[in-house]
Amino acid sequence: MELYIIRHGIAQAKDSAIKDEERTLTKEGQDKTKAVAKRLYDLGLRFDIILTSPLVRSLQTAEIFSFLQPKGELQVSTDLAPNGDIHSWLNWLEEQQYSPTTKLAIIGHEPNLGQWASMLIWGEVREEALIFKKAGIIGLNLPEMRSPIGQSQMFLLTPPKFLLI
Amino acid sequence: MELYIIRHGIAQAKDSAIKDEERTLTKEGQDKTKAVAKRLYDLGLRFDIILTSPLVRSLQTAEIFSFLQPKGELQVSTDLAPNGDIHSWLNWLEEQQYSPTTKLAIIGHEPNLGQWASMLIWGEVREEALIFKKAGIIGLNLPEMRSPIGQSQMFLLTPPKFLLI
Repeated sequence: MELYIIRHGIAQAKDSAIKDEERTLTKEGQDKTKAVAKRLYDLGLRFDIILTSPLVRSLQTAEIFSFLQPKGELQVSTDLAPNGDIHSWLNWLEEQQYSPTTKLAIIGHEPNLGQWASMLIWGEVREEALIFKKAGIIGLNLPEMRSPIGQSQMFLLTPPKFLLI
Repeated sequence: MELYIIRHGIAQAKDSAIKDEERTLTKEGQDKTKAVAKRLYDLGLRFDIILTSPLVRSLQTAEIFSFLQPKGELQVSTDLAPNGDIHSWLNWLEEQQYSPTTKLAIIGHEPNLGQWASMLIWGEVREEALIFKKAGIIGLNLPEMRSPIGQSQMFLLTPPKFLLI
């Protein structure tokens, strides 16, 4: 199956007056995320499921992708929150028994998601090996019938810059 | 500096009647390569140097990029031919003493170039970890003042599909 890992868009800066989980996308973050979502839609990409971290900035990003991907069922997973556990998420994934043609999008946070991508491709985390920008996307082919850890293939890594007109 | 690794476009099939080094781009290969080169130009990407394998299909690909990148000086390197040696190429690179703002494009063949990318990012070759399509592109940040092997960062990996309208 194809796994698309998406980082949430540009959000409000950290501020002691706002809880981290309640930070929202800025106007620029919304606009850039919408442009990326539209571009991927125009390129023919269709997600079957969109799974998001429960934090507001990630939920908002997921809503933007979901709006343009009406077939993409939106679900929330605490595994995708900061410090979420890849093994817990992989257990969930295995239980779903998705078909090999499924396109799954997961939306969340750095450094988690870049580390997960590194684990899936190389079987270990190499800090700072991948530059994963806000509203950027990583595309992986996950193998059938065996653990994806260290056995997935990367076919896409792009910041928003290369997806905007 | 930024290193852009580009795989040559779609070429004539292997055939005992044609020497491998003389295989040319097909019409589809030319058109797709031109579209990718134009898209990267439109996105503002400018190469300072374009280095290519001496094989015809790679030279043709380099000419297409060079046409749209008039500042990009075109050079040929046998290190980029199939089975070229990354260490020999890195010695050449070190001798050039390029500035940290240089954008260098290298054009050549699989499986060499995907293996080079893997070496630069992770310090070792992992076969089939990266899917690198014809006329596809990989973007890496190379560190200053130390060996790029295992210390480069990937910011871009894309097949032509995500660069075409």
